Amino acid sequence: MSGLVRSWVESANSPTTDFPLNNLPCGVFSTPDLTPRCGVAIGAMILDLGAVDHGLDQSLFAAPAWNAVMAAGPQVWAALRARLMALLSDPAHQAAVTPHLVAQAGARLHLPFVVAEFTDFYASKHHATNVGTLFRGAQNALPHNWLSIPIGYNGRASSVVVSGTDVLRPWGQMKGPDHDMPAFLPSRRFDFELEMGAIVGMPSTGMVSVQQADDMIFGYVLLNDWSARDIQAWEYQPLGPFQAKATATTISPWIVTKPALEPFRTQTPPRDRPLLPYLREPGPMLYDIVLEVALAPEGAGETVIARSNYAHMYYSAAQQLCHHTSSGCAMRTGDLLGSGTISGPTKGSRGALLELTSGGKEPIPLATGGTRSFLQDGDTLTLRGAAIDAGYRIGFGACTGTIRPAVDLPDWAKD
Amino acid sequence: MSGLVRSWVESANSPTTDFPLNNLPCGVFSTPDLTPRCGVAIGAMILDLGAVDHGLDQSLFAAPAWNAVMAAGPQVWAALRARLMALLSDPAHQAAVTPHLVAQAGARLHLPFVVAEFTDFYASKHHATNVGTLFRGAQNALPHNWLSIPIGYNGRASSVVVSGTDVLRPWGQMKGPDHDMPAFLPSRRFDFELEMGAIVGMPSTGMVSVQQADDMIFGYVLLNDWSARDIQAWEYQPLGPFQAKATATTISPWIVTKPALEPFRTQTPPRDRPLLPYLREPGPMLYDIVLEVALAPEGAGETVIARSNYAHMYYSAAQQLCHHTSSGCAMRTGDLLGSGTISGPTKGSRGALLELTSGGKEPIPLATGGTRSFLQDGDTLTLRGAAIDAGYRIGFGACTGTIRPAVDLPDWAKD
Repeated sequence: MSGLVRSWVESANSPTTDFPLNNLPCGVFSTPDLTPRCGVAIGAMILDLGAVDHGLDQSLFAAPAWNAVMAAGPQVWAALRARLMALLSDPAHQAAVTPHLVAQAGARLHLPFVVAEFTDFYASKHHATNVGTLFRGAQNALPHNWLSIPIGYNGRASSVVVSGTDVLRPWGQMKGPDHDMPAFLPSRRFDFELEMGAIVGMPSTGMVSVQQADDMIFGYVLLNDWSARDIQAWEYQPLGPFQAKATATTISPWIVTKPALEPFRTQTPPRDRPLLPYLREPGPMLYDIVLEVALAPEGAGETVIARSNYAHMYYSAAQQLCHHTSSGCAMRTGDLLGSGTISGPTKGSRGALLELTSGGKEPIPLATGGTRSFLQDGDTLTLRGAAIDAGYRIGFGACTGTIRPAVDLPDWAKD
Repeated sequence: MSGLVRSWVESANSPTTDFPLNNLPCGVFSTPDLTPRCGVAIGAMILDLGAVDHGLDQSLFAAPAWNAVMAAGPQVWAALRARLMALLSDPAHQAAVTPHLVAQAGARLHLPFVVAEFTDFYASKHHATNVGTLFRGAQNALPHNWLSIPIGYNGRASSVVVSGTDVLRPWGQMKGPDHDMPAFLPSRRFDFELEMGAIVGMPSTGMVSVQQADDMIFGYVLLNDWSARDIQAWEYQPLGPFQAKATATTISPWIVTKPALEPFRTQTPPRDRPLLPYLREPGPMLYDIVLEVALAPEGAGETVIARSNYAHMYYSAAQQLCHHTSSGCAMRTGDLLGSGTISGPTKGSRGALLELTSGGKEPIPLATGGTRSFLQDGDTLTLRGAAIDAGYRIGFGACTGTIRPAVDLPDWAKD
């Protein structure tokens, strides 16, 4: 807990910036003059890593993605961070570095890495209990395996998009409780899920320990796993969610690396029953990251509809990654692991409209008027998150998306 | 149904070869002298496409994978096939082409394409009924959605391996019916699944029709989705199979392209209830492909334990791919779609030991002595398949794997 590390980039010393020198998150940006390339955020600026003298092999930054750096391993990660800390703290470097700073206000942000595969977990006990109650009743809310397994399922990497990408309301099969047969319709119960995403930097073959898994993780992003609840309810038995989760998964533009989050490590909560030895953590592997969800109808101001914390999770990303390898499954650079919806113990800390509105039965009020059961066309949903210490915050940038109307049904899909 | 197309490669004219000139399946091979590269099988030989004059842009064959050719689209696929048919049928080309033929006997085969993402389906009604009965009882065997949705779930691309790769028995969490708590053990109910795999050649964004989906498919492979039934039974509720299916998925080394299978197209069976319009097929989109499964204990001869046919499926790969895009999910070159276990109506046509042995309760006899409930260490499991017409067969090569003992448990995983 060393407090703010000061930079000669003045905007990085503001107590309200997401990007002090302590953070140095990794992204990919472009401007009208610059093609997409790797950069790190510093205050209101971005440092262009394809141009500045960071002392590393320049080929690591040849592609507009962080995968090559991730694959280079923890020693390279540490060397890069140390060099950037020096460049951006010591005024002696200011003249040489300043030409390679770009204003965030004039930059477009892209997906920061090539997603190899995407796995989504189900690791908040509050969320699992709330959703389990809605889908299966209070008696069967928490599956018997839940307290022993970090339950996960494979998602779809091709649907991962960067913050700011519009999201088209999906079509899908759904069946109302009063109908015998399903219909193919635009989703009427389209929802968000507040999650964190862990990014696998180092690959593995064979099973790894929780400690090894933690070492493999390069960093974290905010993640919104958009979910069509009506499609999900009809399709998910017996093999799990499929098209309900395949429309889009939005991540924040900045990967916050583990060293930036190190002061905010925290323990997972006490176990309701003992874990099997392979899943026991050798130290604190969750993080105290304050999260909020805001909803803005088209043309109106936003309402914060939920406040939560990553520390509410029952399983850490390291435990999830360890379990992911337990059958011998190979992990690769660029694998993305969604934490699962992050819900806290109180109603206002629930990480999805499904839970916030009790399955749509109790719409929540918006500060600008009206209510929401599920997302409407034109709504913009924004996740924000930061690890906060005295005098500084480690932020991720916003993770945002606007719902656009479903496309017209093609002729061949009509009755 | 034009019958055998003769080649000057004499071994391609044998009625028993899997690889007549009609076939020309796509693989990647190496020899002690040649690095891995693209080739097509012809009789007992392989034609080296990096060396022969096929008239296409040579950069399509720069990598040891068929992805570039697949991404180039159906016109390129057709041009390549036409040119290879001419080169290998007309003796005028024999002198120029012969130096680029390599004996299969001296070649090693590799994964023929880079798997982008892997999706597995559940599309045999016989299989879904048999397994549903074992997991959920006869009353709930076929889920209510099954007759309307080509049920699928996302699998793990990193676990896809080529035929001939050994398979390590996985560790995993499992819980016996007489135990309150799970244990972490090597799987005792390790199984195969007889499947076909469809390979997406052309990418898509947004929803595609069944016809467009069929047009996007480059070809088919045999596929064995190794499955740990004890891990699966404990983990699969509520989000589907995860580590039970992540140890390995083996595919045959040769991609059989659609034109080779064209004479063998056949209709899906009559519908038990009408499909929604978007899933209706404009023509026959299954294939009549005869399949068999053989099991050989270590050091012993093999027993054919099942005989089936791809035509038993309720849903075609084109229907599955159409449904996969229905929520707007983008598909990419190299996506692999497993058909789901192919089981026919008779006991001997079941595509997994789980079904063949009624959940392990009725072990099957082996011709060489002994019985099997599930796979034992040292067992070699082989899938074979061919579309058969008078005088020729379109084969895939064997899809085989040998079970090796589970690795020793690492210290950190011990109690």
